[in-house]
Amino acid sequence: MSELPKAPDVVRSCYAELVVTDLERAHWFWVELLGLHVQHREDGVLCLRGSDELTHHNLVLREGPVAALDHIAYRVRTPEDVDRAERYFTAVGSPVRRIPAGEGTPGVGDAVRVVDPLGFPVEFFHDISRAERLIQRYDLKRGARIARLDHFNIVVPDIPAAYRHYEALGFGCSETIEDEHEMYAAWMYRKQTVHDVAFTGGAGPRMHHIGMATHESHSVLHTADILGSLHQEGFIERGPGRHGVSNAFYVYLRDPDGHRVEIYTSDYYTGDPDHETFRWNVHDDRRRDFWGNAVIESWYKEATPVLDLAGNVTPISESAIDESATRVGADGLGD
Amino acid sequence: MSELPKAPDVVRSCYAELVVTDLERAHWFWVELLGLHVQHREDGVLCLRGSDELTHHNLVLREGPVAALDHIAYRVRTPEDVDRAERYFTAVGSPVRRIPAGEGTPGVGDAVRVVDPLGFPVEFFHDISRAERLIQRYDLKRGARIARLDHFNIVVPDIPAAYRHYEALGFGCSETIEDEHEMYAAWMYRKQTVHDVAFTGGAGPRMHHIGMATHESHSVLHTADILGSLHQEGFIERGPGRHGVSNAFYVYLRDPDGHRVEIYTSDYYTGDPDHETFRWNVHDDRRRDFWGNAVIESWYKEATPVLDLAGNVTPISESAIDESATRVGADGLGD
Amino acid sequence: MSELPKAPDVVRSCYAELVVTDLERAHWFWVELLGLHVQHREDGVLCLRGSDELTHHNLVLREGPVAALDHIAYRVRTPEDVDRAERYFTAVGSPVRRIPAGEGTPGVGDAVRVVDPLGFPVEFFHDISRAERLIQRYDLKRGARIARLDHFNIVVPDIPAAYRHYEALGFGCSETIEDEHEMYAAWMYRKQTVHDVAFTGGAGPRMHHIGMATHESHSVLHTADILGSLHQEGFIERGPGRHGVSNAFYVYLRDPDGHRVEIYTSDYYTGDPDHETFRWNVHDDRRRDFWGNAVIESWYKEATPVLDLAGNVTPISESAIDESATRVGADGLGD
Amino acid sequence: MSELPKAPDVVRSCYAELVVTDLERAHWFWVELLGLHVQHREDGVLCLRGSDELTHHNLVLREGPVAALDHIAYRVRTPEDVDRAERYFTAVGSPVRRIPAGEGTPGVGDAVRVVDPLGFPVEFFHDISRAERLIQRYDLKRGARIARLDHFNIVVPDIPAAYRHYEALGFGCSETIEDEHEMYAAWMYRKQTVHDVAFTGGAGPRMHHIGMATHESHSVLHTADILGSLHQEGFIERGPGRHGVSNAFYVYLRDPDGHRVEIYTSDYYTGDPDHETFRWNVHDDRRRDFWGNAVIESWYKEATPVLDLAGNVTPISESAIDESATRVGADGLGD
Repeated sequence: MSELPKAPDVVRSCYAELVVTDLERAHWFWVELLGLHVQHREDGVLCLRGSDELTHHNLVLREGPVAALDHIAYRVRTPEDVDRAERYFTAVGSPVRRIPAGEGTPGVGDAVRVVDPLGFPVEFFHDISRAERLIQRYDLKRGARIARLDHFNIVVPDIPAAYRHYEALGFGCSETIEDEHEMYAAWMYRKQTVHDVAFTGGAGPRMHHIGMATHESHSVLHTADILGSLHQEGFIERGPGRHGVSNAFYVYLRDPDGHRVEIYTSDYYTGDPDHETFRWNVHDDRRRDFWGNAVIESWYKEATPVLDLAGNVTPISESAIDESATRVGADGLGD
Repeated sequence: MSELPKAPDVVRSCYAELVVTDLERAHWFWVELLGLHVQHREDGVLCLRGSDELTHHNLVLREGPVAALDHIAYRVRTPEDVDRAERYFTAVGSPVRRIPAGEGTPGVGDAVRVVDPLGFPVEFFHDISRAERLIQRYDLKRGARIARLDHFNIVVPDIPAAYRHYEALGFGCSETIEDEHEMYAAWMYRKQTVHDVAFTGGAGPRMHHIGMATHESHSVLHTADILGSLHQEGFIERGPGRHGVSNAFYVYLRDPDGHRVEIYTSDYYTGDPDHETFRWNVHDDRRRDFWGNAVIESWYKEATPVLDLAGNVTPISESAIDESATRVGADGLGD
Repeated sequence: MSELPKAPDVVRSCYAELVVTDLERAHWFWVELLGLHVQHREDGVLCLRGSDELTHHNLVLREGPVAALDHIAYRVRTPEDVDRAERYFTAVGSPVRRIPAGEGTPGVGDAVRVVDPLGFPVEFFHDISRAERLIQRYDLKRGARIARLDHFNIVVPDIPAAYRHYEALGFGCSETIEDEHEMYAAWMYRKQTVHDVAFTGGAGPRMHHIGMATHESHSVLHTADILGSLHQEGFIERGPGRHGVSNAFYVYLRDPDGHRVEIYTSDYYTGDPDHETFRWNVHDDRRRDFWGNAVIESWYKEATPVLDLAGNVTPISESAIDESATRVGADGLGD
Repeated sequence: MSELPKAPDVVRSCYAELVVTDLERAHWFWVELLGLHVQHREDGVLCLRGSDELTHHNLVLREGPVAALDHIAYRVRTPEDVDRAERYFTAVGSPVRRIPAGEGTPGVGDAVRVVDPLGFPVEFFHDISRAERLIQRYDLKRGARIARLDHFNIVVPDIPAAYRHYEALGFGCSETIEDEHEMYAAWMYRKQTVHDVAFTGGAGPRMHHIGMATHESHSVLHTADILGSLHQEGFIERGPGRHGVSNAFYVYLRDPDGHRVEIYTSDYYTGDPDHETFRWNVHDDRRRDFWGNAVIESWYKEATPVLDLAGNVTPISESAIDESATRVGADGLGD
């Protein structure tokens, strides 16, 4: 890939835009229940953020006919990195669309949207509206007390291809699930946490989940407790539990459209230049849940469809990994 | 005292009725900020409870001209114990008033109110309205996530007299602050916790604080954080901190009328019949704060006046303990 | 039962004595891992307690050939209540053995052991050695930071019979699992918590678990995390999770002999004289796990055999409830 | 400063080397009490780290005659950045000493030590031994459960000069304490947290404290509780409390030589390229303690002397800020 133009300097995962089929129901889930802050509301669109986020949003909910991922978005270091993203993905052969400020997602300036080589709709932007500092507004913290977006997790049929794509974009790799033959999953980062993006093996492109960070484990427990209180425990899919990978404490929920969100706390610093990849063996039962609890089937199998740049649902391909041949079982394909 | 009638069988401290000068301000503090549940509201009166409380209230706020304690109230085991209370305090020579169901505090049935020998207005009742179970309504828990009333703390000039009075009422003593000559404070219980009532030495009768229980220490921290968020940190008087006495984690707040409330968590079981009193030496700096942090002056000196049965403020007497003679300093007189 | 002698006044569940097949392995689990305090050690016997316990022990481990429950033990209010226990169970027709001080479990004085009508070996005692106060020895708290024994959970084929037996002993009932035809489980108490004993429907008599109290939920999480760290996550059987019944936060472990222990925190006060039973419907998925997580099969099916007064393993009877007829499934039989 | 050579690319604050007068006492404090992991021990030297640290140490304790800071150390991005540091500080006119691998601190490779323009002994290195991953060794976590070094806090007479020096080294500024005339304190970072270094106004150069990160607030409380348990509460100087600046939850301890350490948790992400400085007004009582609790005098006044490259104690200069003229009081000079 040495002849490719210089890749954009990605700062971090910043927001996801999801299509939801009922904005009021989505408001109930993401705002009333989880406690995200409503930064902006306009016809058919909600822009939400966590209390530590200092830009306009971490999540955009847009009402539409089919529940899907519209795009994930990375913030880049400079305005010129938006141009770099355009040149880079054009050279890669991806569909690319430049979106001038004011024509895209509310609050976001000049941006480039691409369908990356993995089939995902991805936005790169630098300019975004600043938002009022809520870091110390404990009076406003409710529900899961979400601080910020932490990461995206995407389902891809070919993990090594995903790894190479993000490696070329300058991402480091904090952890993997492997055996001597295959890589089953990987966690990659730009900011100094365990990940900005992770790959789950399976039919794709699909979005597995978005990870939202909270500060302490009792907020994860409280999130689950609220759902039990409302007899809406069906929205809890998996956990609370401790991840082996990342060491984070988590719970996975499904929103009313089935979009999965992880409430996530307490990973570790990865900012040293020689930070080494930690490799989990696919046969270590602790990799997905450090306490050895079984992973529920739906967590491996279900995921959110993704849209292309024209707004159509992208067809999916089956996974290239033959898990039955590796005798790993369904568990080997996920996280 | 052997000729006295049998004392009523007290189950526990149940509620306090406070006079506040501005009910809307009090609502802001106790309901919006601390998150107590409004069980009942009528003209000039608010009945509030914690989420674990299964009776009508733990706190009654009544609007009136002078901020004061109207009365503290103990629940007794049977309806007959209300009669016993009437006979007992009559024999003791206390002012006694029988209050038929419907004529006293909302939700409370047949009751007796007395001015006890320590000068405090105290109610004994058995019948009280049941309230909807909110124990598992995590969706409603806000602010300090108060579970229930834990205890009263009263300021009295004569600690041994207070001790003897409550001992005669069947209270056990979990802890004291002492030296070889004096008892400076004591914690006494009927329910199986460290206390239902505690005595702080000083000019009295005055109410030092009411203690409200929450389940975990992070809720105490969150309470203080909310006040900082609102730039209302002046309502925090002392703490958060760990008590030596009781081992509980605490913060003391002052409501808009200066009434003091302690948010309190994690004391210990005292229900064994031979539970021994733990005696702190007044010179052990950990007794009031286990981490040795100094106690703020106002915490020792300021307290809430109490009303008599006619609703007039009770005059106070100075403390009998001469703390300068014991060289203990102001610290020896309180909690 | 009106002609029965007066039942002993039970204060609380105090300790269990377990037979373990390898005392050093048991020491690793209960002391090194869970952090119980070793109060006494003699040949083949370990006496352990939590940091809030002020008597000699909460758990006795005795090495023997077959892993079993030797007995559970309730503390009674007075020495005379030991005599009452002897008369009561004699009248009931139970095997009864008086054990003079010094001849039974170390630290325990005069005691009576019976095989109760449910088939369980149960001790009633009043006198027990006091132990050094460790309540504020945070420097010694390790592992699960266990405070005290909270409860016993026993497996019985006939839940209503167990209910009636303990009701006759003066226990209150905090919660049940029911439907219109059957009672599937019940939680009964003497001390002012949700329970001292609970009944799980199934083949019995067997001991389901002992419940050990810790102060905050992070200690439950830490317990599971330690097991993951050591790659001993197989000792975690179920959880961590939130109970519907009791509202407590829990994790269930199995010791090296398969004895089950629950690390348990945060239930609620039950000391009011008219405390009402809260009745869960057997079809409410939240009763066993408030978040709706499935209960693992072994948790319903496996339990510890119990010994008779001669030290022989007691045969078990199948459950009288026909769960397939009630269409409840295995879940309906447990907790 | 435009003619200066390119500054080294600093990754983060990595470790401090302290001179202690009694290594066994220091071992008690830092290892037995706080729970730091002993990575290396040789005659008169202890190398310690937190459980998340993947390099050789976060703290070096070296026995010597006078308690002092030997040096603070920043890790740089590449080996060439060590050369850059040498050229940069030579050009600045600082004393500079090159320390080949094997001749300096155990575990550290090729390094440069300088006395920076603020008078502090500072090391820049890239190569350092890797250490076994303990991130998920919950079985080893004790005391304060320290994860890693978070920051240095240094006392300087001239805050703007310190600000300019670190700005030239490429540090961002997350927060300050100011009024319209003066800057009283500043927090500056390279890694994506609130700070790697902060400046407290006062007589300097002296080291105010080192900040050690832990994951959750209950570990801060537990640290203080352990000291109370041992009746060593005198080692607690300030807190636990919530900072206004940084929003972190903290406690300050003094080690047996008076070196100050902060146990610190829960600040926020600062990695965006346009992260804005948050400016506290010196008159906002929440800046130092978000709950408005007063700061103890010793915290402002006492600090650790620093050594020069020859190992002699550096004389100190008084602060240039005249706090009485600004009517800020002692409080204005700290944190």
